[in-house]
Amino acid sequence: MYILVTYDVDTTSKEGARRLRCVAKACIDYGQRVQNSVFECEVTEAQYCLLRGRIKDIIDMSRDSVRFYILSKNENRRVEVIGVETAYKVNNAFIV
Amino acid sequence: MYILVTYDVDTTSKEGARRLRCVAKACIDYGQRVQNSVFECEVTEAQYCLLRGRIKDIIDMSRDSVRFYILSKNENRRVEVIGVETAYKVNNAFIV
Repeated sequence: MYILVTYDVDTTSKEGARRLRCVAKACIDYGQRVQNSVFECEVTEAQYCLLRGRIKDIIDMSRDSVRFYILSKNENRRVEVIGVETAYKVNNAFIV
Repeated sequence: MYILVTYDVDTTSKEGARRLRCVAKACIDYGQRVQNSVFECEVTEAQYCLLRGRIKDIIDMSRDSVRFYILSKNENRRVEVIGVETAYKVNNAFIV
C-alpha cells in the first residue's frame, strides 16, 4: 500500500525536538522523505501497522499531529490521524 | 478535484518567512489547513491552475518546495512538484 505521512511536532521544548527526530527516524525506516515533514512510503499492511504503532509511542498526543493518507488503488482511500486533529475540522473529503 | 498541498519554504531569511506567509495565504483561499504546511483543498481544475500559478509566483524555485497530490477518484492520481524536488529522488510511487 502507498501511504503519505505528514506530521507536525510541537518543537517548542527540547523534548519536542527529540520527538521530531524520533518520528523522522521511524518514517525513514519505512519510506522516503520528500519534504521536511512529509514521507512517501510503500509498505505492507503489517508494516503500516508497525509504523503507526511506533509513531503513536513517540508523539505527545495532545501536542503533535501525524496524518496518514492511504492512497493505494486497491485500498479504501482514507486519512488516519494520530494526535491533534488540528483546530480546523476536517471533513471526509479524502474518504473517496 | 481533491488535492493535498504540502510545502517546505526556506525560512532562514526574512524574505523566506514572507514567502511562507504568502504560500499559506494562497492555500487558505482554496482549502483547509490540516497541519502547519499541509492543506486539503476541493477545487476545480481552473482553481487548481490558479492556485498553482499563484504559488509559483511566490516561491523561490531554488529554495522552496511545494507538492500537489491530486487524489480525486476520477483524476489520474499524481504528484506535481514546484520548486526543489528534494535531495531524495522520488519515484513514481504516487502515479497509480
